[in-house]
Amino acid sequence: MTQRSLRLGLLGGGPGSFIGAVHRMAAILDDRFTLVAGAFSRSIEKSQTQAARWGVAPDRAYDGIEAMLAGENTREDGIEAVAIATPNDSHFAIARAAMEAGLPVICDKPMTATLAEAEALAPIVAASGLPFALTYTYTGYAMIREARARVAAGTIGRVRKIMVDYPQGWLAEAIEGENVQAGWRTDPSRAGAGGAIGDIGVHAFQLAEYVSGLEAAELVADLPRVVPGRQLDDDCNILLRFAGGVPGVLTASQIATGERNGLRLRVYGDKGGLEWCHDAPGELILRWRDARTEIIHAGAPSLSLDAQRAIRLPSGHPEGFIEAFATLYADFADAIAGTQGRLDAVLPGIREGLRSMRFIDCAVRSDEARAWLPIPGEAA
Amino acid sequence: MTQRSLRLGLLGGGPGSFIGAVHRMAAILDDRFTLVAGAFSRSIEKSQTQAARWGVAPDRAYDGIEAMLAGENTREDGIEAVAIATPNDSHFAIARAAMEAGLPVICDKPMTATLAEAEALAPIVAASGLPFALTYTYTGYAMIREARARVAAGTIGRVRKIMVDYPQGWLAEAIEGENVQAGWRTDPSRAGAGGAIGDIGVHAFQLAEYVSGLEAAELVADLPRVVPGRQLDDDCNILLRFAGGVPGVLTASQIATGERNGLRLRVYGDKGGLEWCHDAPGELILRWRDARTEIIHAGAPSLSLDAQRAIRLPSGHPEGFIEAFATLYADFADAIAGTQGRLDAVLPGIREGLRSMRFIDCAVRSDEARAWLPIPGEAA
Amino acid sequence: MTQRSLRLGLLGGGPGSFIGAVHRMAAILDDRFTLVAGAFSRSIEKSQTQAARWGVAPDRAYDGIEAMLAGENTREDGIEAVAIATPNDSHFAIARAAMEAGLPVICDKPMTATLAEAEALAPIVAASGLPFALTYTYTGYAMIREARARVAAGTIGRVRKIMVDYPQGWLAEAIEGENVQAGWRTDPSRAGAGGAIGDIGVHAFQLAEYVSGLEAAELVADLPRVVPGRQLDDDCNILLRFAGGVPGVLTASQIATGERNGLRLRVYGDKGGLEWCHDAPGELILRWRDARTEIIHAGAPSLSLDAQRAIRLPSGHPEGFIEAFATLYADFADAIAGTQGRLDAVLPGIREGLRSMRFIDCAVRSDEARAWLPIPGEAA
Amino acid sequence: MTQRSLRLGLLGGGPGSFIGAVHRMAAILDDRFTLVAGAFSRSIEKSQTQAARWGVAPDRAYDGIEAMLAGENTREDGIEAVAIATPNDSHFAIARAAMEAGLPVICDKPMTATLAEAEALAPIVAASGLPFALTYTYTGYAMIREARARVAAGTIGRVRKIMVDYPQGWLAEAIEGENVQAGWRTDPSRAGAGGAIGDIGVHAFQLAEYVSGLEAAELVADLPRVVPGRQLDDDCNILLRFAGGVPGVLTASQIATGERNGLRLRVYGDKGGLEWCHDAPGELILRWRDARTEIIHAGAPSLSLDAQRAIRLPSGHPEGFIEAFATLYADFADAIAGTQGRLDAVLPGIREGLRSMRFIDCAVRSDEARAWLPIPGEAA
Repeated sequence: MTQRSLRLGLLGGGPGSFIGAVHRMAAILDDRFTLVAGAFSRSIEKSQTQAARWGVAPDRAYDGIEAMLAGENTREDGIEAVAIATPNDSHFAIARAAMEAGLPVICDKPMTATLAEAEALAPIVAASGLPFALTYTYTGYAMIREARARVAAGTIGRVRKIMVDYPQGWLAEAIEGENVQAGWRTDPSRAGAGGAIGDIGVHAFQLAEYVSGLEAAELVADLPRVVPGRQLDDDCNILLRFAGGVPGVLTASQIATGERNGLRLRVYGDKGGLEWCHDAPGELILRWRDARTEIIHAGAPSLSLDAQRAIRLPSGHPEGFIEAFATLYADFADAIAGTQGRLDAVLPGIREGLRSMRFIDCAVRSDEARAWLPIPGEAA
Repeated sequence: MTQRSLRLGLLGGGPGSFIGAVHRMAAILDDRFTLVAGAFSRSIEKSQTQAARWGVAPDRAYDGIEAMLAGENTREDGIEAVAIATPNDSHFAIARAAMEAGLPVICDKPMTATLAEAEALAPIVAASGLPFALTYTYTGYAMIREARARVAAGTIGRVRKIMVDYPQGWLAEAIEGENVQAGWRTDPSRAGAGGAIGDIGVHAFQLAEYVSGLEAAELVADLPRVVPGRQLDDDCNILLRFAGGVPGVLTASQIATGERNGLRLRVYGDKGGLEWCHDAPGELILRWRDARTEIIHAGAPSLSLDAQRAIRLPSGHPEGFIEAFATLYADFADAIAGTQGRLDAVLPGIREGLRSMRFIDCAVRSDEARAWLPIPGEAA
Repeated sequence: MTQRSLRLGLLGGGPGSFIGAVHRMAAILDDRFTLVAGAFSRSIEKSQTQAARWGVAPDRAYDGIEAMLAGENTREDGIEAVAIATPNDSHFAIARAAMEAGLPVICDKPMTATLAEAEALAPIVAASGLPFALTYTYTGYAMIREARARVAAGTIGRVRKIMVDYPQGWLAEAIEGENVQAGWRTDPSRAGAGGAIGDIGVHAFQLAEYVSGLEAAELVADLPRVVPGRQLDDDCNILLRFAGGVPGVLTASQIATGERNGLRLRVYGDKGGLEWCHDAPGELILRWRDARTEIIHAGAPSLSLDAQRAIRLPSGHPEGFIEAFATLYADFADAIAGTQGRLDAVLPGIREGLRSMRFIDCAVRSDEARAWLPIPGEAA
Repeated sequence: MTQRSLRLGLLGGGPGSFIGAVHRMAAILDDRFTLVAGAFSRSIEKSQTQAARWGVAPDRAYDGIEAMLAGENTREDGIEAVAIATPNDSHFAIARAAMEAGLPVICDKPMTATLAEAEALAPIVAASGLPFALTYTYTGYAMIREARARVAAGTIGRVRKIMVDYPQGWLAEAIEGENVQAGWRTDPSRAGAGGAIGDIGVHAFQLAEYVSGLEAAELVADLPRVVPGRQLDDDCNILLRFAGGVPGVLTASQIATGERNGLRLRVYGDKGGLEWCHDAPGELILRWRDARTEIIHAGAPSLSLDAQRAIRLPSGHPEGFIEAFATLYADFADAIAGTQGRLDAVLPGIREGLRSMRFIDCAVRSDEARAWLPIPGEAA
């Protein structure tokens, strides 16, 4: 079952980046990828600086996807996959270029800056026949996969209510002037139509659909700009109805002062309820009608195969954000190798990207109209 | 500072009742009231049975408010206050009769079954000049009072977001056939226009306004009937805007399978965030921007006077639901004695009753219209 | 099943007292006792002041047990039971006088100031044939009774390890000069030979034996005086071996700065482990070998009869310290009424008092000898 | 500040190993080491199998330290450091051979199987002048370093009590027949004189000294063999006195059924108390005298430099066991590079190894003698 480590080129991850460094660690942790090239910044100097830091050869530091594709194409040991960790507005062009060059892509969320880009990307991915993965990090946690498997197996019965809450406080003040990451996330020309909803609301949305197995069908959204001067929402409150009329509530905020990253999902069925919270990611909480709460810990022997794939250590040895991210990379490697037929079931891709972009678009329109609106489905 | 224990007559509390027994324990705990009379049931036999159980003289067990007022009126040691713990549809008539007979009233929530009754009760209370209290239990918890005091003092800065969630699961199945309490709560002729919203949503609503010090101004509500056959909502999801446009989210459910009674409030200001949860009622959680969480425990020497009034034991000795309820009774006794001028500040009364009934009415209309609606304010 | 409320006389509970007020609330909560007389202080003035506060007639406020017995003996409606909430050094004389006067006694822990007194009291209790109860508060919590019932039923298998920890911090400074309660507890002439061990170590010890069903057989104790100038231990660390060689660890401290009252018990069997902590007294935690934790909440329908007796409210409505104490009073009332044959099984009495005094005596000797010592058993 | 990734050779990590795989991930995570060679097993076939899995060239898979040193010595790109992840009885010989060959060593705990070996190793390390590190994993957690820094800074005042508890349940049954790791850990010829104390008790001991800054001076230990047939302790209960008479309690167990890996440390000073628990490794809990608990989260801007070095992600993004381990590797790389003068302050080495071996030896003797014994100090 030995697999050769694949050669990866990374877009993004320059100085001051957060998620680029995560991509690097996640890619190498399980020895499925080796970082051999990168366009870590649009500045070739900064890109080379980062390359030196990460052990990438100077001549494989580029200033963009075009240069990278050109440079790598000439090598026998050229890159075999592309990772995208840049701001939203560049995702589409990079992904298109990479896939048209025959390279599988793993891309940060949201998939694109606009719904139109997302809809343009879908046929490109389909035509390529190549793996396209989205790093919806939370789907890399073992206990999220376990939650999904248990809902699918009927453990909590028919799903009747879905609640997901993603509180952050790091944009509680207008720091966008001095903070690079805050800067592009609050700028419609870089981030797209969604602020908090695009940055973290999509995580919440994707997680709700992923675990419940239900598609959201309609919503009414309130997307305030709480900090004066913001053009994009920094707070996000949404009522939903999922398929079959199942009620849901999605909240996400970047002005919830003092909160760090406590994404929390609850799904209630007619037999029981389940809860997962990022503050204790190795626990899946099940609640039963007889005033009994059950906590399943990562590493439990009873876990589903999907969950076990995402675990490296014995129970009681916490795995965190990097490991969850690494699991997505391992899945991506498997998808490239073609070794795991049902991977599309657990690894988010173009379908999830389209869903999330439709969700953002619909919520923004609902907020403007102050009205309930339908979310276009797969056929749309 | 010694006060004579006041003579109390209780309506409700018959066999199978939950809240009637709580009223009894809460009334006597701090020796501010003695239970001397009661119409514990509309059946005189059941009323007498309960009287015997609670040490009430047989001749002071009645079958209704009229009989009680008639009987007690003739005695030198007649009742000095009335407590109402009956289903919602009887609150108005009992309260009116008692107050017109010159007796202060402490009443369970929601104040009445309909908004019309609430609006009719307000002038009666005003005209009487007598104390009228509502047992919004959670306002009797020391740490809720502390939360309120700290928000008012600006500890967390200007309030910018309010979230309140009240999950229960006891109505996850259609038990209304065999369960007395489920029966009247799901019956519009007994409960009024609201199901879950009237039973527990009002607690959440009152708490949000009580702690934040802000009035809710508009809402969009989704009030599904999840269990087939229900006429009233058993799940309740609402987006709010409070005064000044402050966004809020209120959720309450009685079909959240496996949940027991975990009412949870979060208020975010521009300096910090606070949280209180009924699962750990002796804790007030404060979150700060520097990735620091502070927990203030009941009994802390720094507590406000309002909070200290609600504490009987040293820190580390948990007080619970009965004690919180007892604090409301102690406040009510103080209001009768006239010893605490600013009591109206902490003890919910007619104003809070009206607010809650307007909230229910507005939410029910919003749910039907699938639209945002304004909540009538005090002037309305 | 109606029972008449019994007339109670209380020793202790004067101004500044903590536990006396708890006795009063606990006695009346379930309407099993009425507080009709008291020697609340050795000062008749203070005793009368407290009587007025608690609705006790002025002529039934006394300055000691002798006066109380003399006064009450002449009345038709004289007291029917005696509650002792005074400092340790007076327990023996009061209990003896009351029982010799034919009155059942409910007494605070530790039972007496010395082992000699405890051994002298045992035959008096036996000869009287009257109920004698000790308010080991924690045994009044439903989930402690549930823990005991589950261990007895073999749920966690054969018990193999017992850990009990009782951290407090209120004596972290030398406050005994200004604080009445600290004063007598740190004074060997009032408290007896044990400081922290006598005040809270006995709670931990009693709980360990109560839940595990095992008697401690030997120990090695370290009883430091951490705060300079203390004559008695203010910290208490003990290794134990229970019957059958089962290892145990008991720690109790009153200098654990910042701790409030977080008594915590863990018992491990060969099938599972259980945990209870006073910070969340309505939860019993069970841990299983398959990385699964189970939390049983107070109010669960599966609870044992012993636990259900100790519950007043539906699950999710917290009961605390006063309610646990009240359960002991209800048990005591049942013992007086003779209505519950197996009560000696759940309500601590003379046996538990003797055990605890032997434990203190043995630990003090072990600390002095720096050696393992056997704890005398029942036959001793 | 760019550093070249160092070439590492790993001993151990064969099929079925747990800690070997952790060493690999930890070494590469921060790009400070590249795994280029290994004696993953004493069987050359197994060693080569593992090499293939981890991208190590087949000719650099060895069957022991001698072969590895011989093979690598001939290469220009030979290994620059050695990692030891084998059973305890082989640590000494490997470490000696590596250091005598001029290679820095990072070694798993306990340092050696016997105190004699430890004492023999000390002068070898000293003579080599090379870095020697011990992977006391928990010292790699940011919040443990923060705890240490705060104690040193006097945040909680003078230390007066130390409690450390390390509960595991995985050896609750006699699985040593079929489980490789259980096999050698329960075998005195492989593990040395200590069972649970050697495997996890040393972690607890090292952590207590590391954070408190105090050396343990005497102890009384109870080291039962709970599971029938065991030759070594599987449960470990110890009373300690640290320098200055500070009392301490250390417990560690591998038969605490249902426990996973919840190492928990509490240190109480005269101003406050602190707590850290492996179940929530990103939190440092501080308790204050005014009934206030403070939780400092990993990523807080106020953290000490030692803690910040150990953090890769923003607050709210959990880092776990692998990251803590990786921090030790990063420290080790710094020590090799000589870039961090005060590293000996945070990275455990020969001193900590000697302390732990003296602790095991003393505890085993104390258990046999059933007596308090002094722990030899640094001069010993």
